[in-house]
Amino acid sequence: MTGWVAVAGLGPGDEALVTPQVRAALDAASDVVGYIPYVARIAPRAGLRLHASDNRVELDRAAHALDMAAQGRRVVVVSSGDPGVFAMASALFEALEAGPQHWRALDIRVLPGITAMLAAAARAGAPLGHDFCAINLSDNLKPWALIEKRLRLAAEADFAMAFYNPRSKARPDGFARALEVLRTTCADARPVVFARAVSTPQEELRIVPLTEARPEMADMRTMVIVGSSLTRVIDTPRGPVIFTPRSA
Amino acid sequence: MTGWVAVAGLGPGDEALVTPQVRAALDAASDVVGYIPYVARIAPRAGLRLHASDNRVELDRAAHALDMAAQGRRVVVVSSGDPGVFAMASALFEALEAGPQHWRALDIRVLPGITAMLAAAARAGAPLGHDFCAINLSDNLKPWALIEKRLRLAAEADFAMAFYNPRSKARPDGFARALEVLRTTCADARPVVFARAVSTPQEELRIVPLTEARPEMADMRTMVIVGSSLTRVIDTPRGPVIFTPRSA
Repeated sequence: MTGWVAVAGLGPGDEALVTPQVRAALDAASDVVGYIPYVARIAPRAGLRLHASDNRVELDRAAHALDMAAQGRRVVVVSSGDPGVFAMASALFEALEAGPQHWRALDIRVLPGITAMLAAAARAGAPLGHDFCAINLSDNLKPWALIEKRLRLAAEADFAMAFYNPRSKARPDGFARALEVLRTTCADARPVVFARAVSTPQEELRIVPLTEARPEMADMRTMVIVGSSLTRVIDTPRGPVIFTPRSA
Repeated sequence: MTGWVAVAGLGPGDEALVTPQVRAALDAASDVVGYIPYVARIAPRAGLRLHASDNRVELDRAAHALDMAAQGRRVVVVSSGDPGVFAMASALFEALEAGPQHWRALDIRVLPGITAMLAAAARAGAPLGHDFCAINLSDNLKPWALIEKRLRLAAEADFAMAFYNPRSKARPDGFARALEVLRTTCADARPVVFARAVSTPQEELRIVPLTEARPEMADMRTMVIVGSSLTRVIDTPRGPVIFTPRSA
């Protein structure tokens, strides 16, 4: 039997946001590989081996997946959200580039998913409705100076901005510095969305002006979205709705 | 019966990329509203009214949807891709903001979908695997100077870039000017992805260095993705794979 690897996005949490394409890959898989909480989302069944691993071992996990596929296994590497956005797809290709030549002949597919920023944006309205950028605020793999440079240029370009991994126990201070950069470049009223665990029972949504944004409003399960200069909030009986007009 | 509006993303074309959440909304709808080719993707059934309208009437379409919901209809506004990315969600909230006060009490939801840049990225590898931006190259609703400013700043920030609506019959020249901006700011070998009609039978994928990128490689059905300075291409027996490493 011919092996393959599918790097699949499970979306933000709600099973109704998993595409049929990803569901079909999981149904056809012999092995599922991924970070512990993502593998925990996969229902066990006969003939399916689950390989859960810890955070920060992405390259090992990718190599394991490629090695199993080379042995004829049908491997799904699971990511939350979309695998191509700050997730396992890049790690897999890094491992492919560094690995043995015969891996390059493998059948490797990336199956897109609903990424966190788009789930969060949909929940809040349409804050990413015009030109925007996505920035990973973690400085585990890149210098903080580069993050800060991108924040300044993104503000100057007047992009709406989506921040992944804004804050963690290991990185408690970076997001506070990011907010400081924004305060020096954006108007006080600039709306900021804190969207935590969107589409799960733990979902929390908050929309505040930049002056009221506080570092502790974010954790690792939070997407932060900052509007452009034209982003507006509409008050409704069902709560505030934020959107960026098409002319922004 | 209580009316509602769901602004739903149909993904890039393949029905296997439509989320179960969107499918359920379509099953519950009394009315589907949208641009002609998107409404054409909805299977007719008893009890479902299809309202297809032409391009460039987004605000009228949004107002029509809100008005029907206010009359108790269950309305799905369909977009291709994700409704919050250069699509109908912002138009709907623009119409809501400008419309009668009673519309604000309506049940309005945005249902995310697989947006074109993530489907294209997945097909090509993982070119958006680190910080990136999405820019609509159409100057129908914003000045070209703003687009050019954003391109220059995005290159300076070393974002990977995804371009929506790169080129149309009505706008044959903008994309050529965008390529000129990139040629003055990025290295010759910078990889560029042209991904046309991804996930459909008309799909075409091309990865070229910036020096070989030509305006006529893009049309309205093409997503263009430009790598960051660290984006790389791996040659494989199955074709080239492009990815941006996690440290970019």
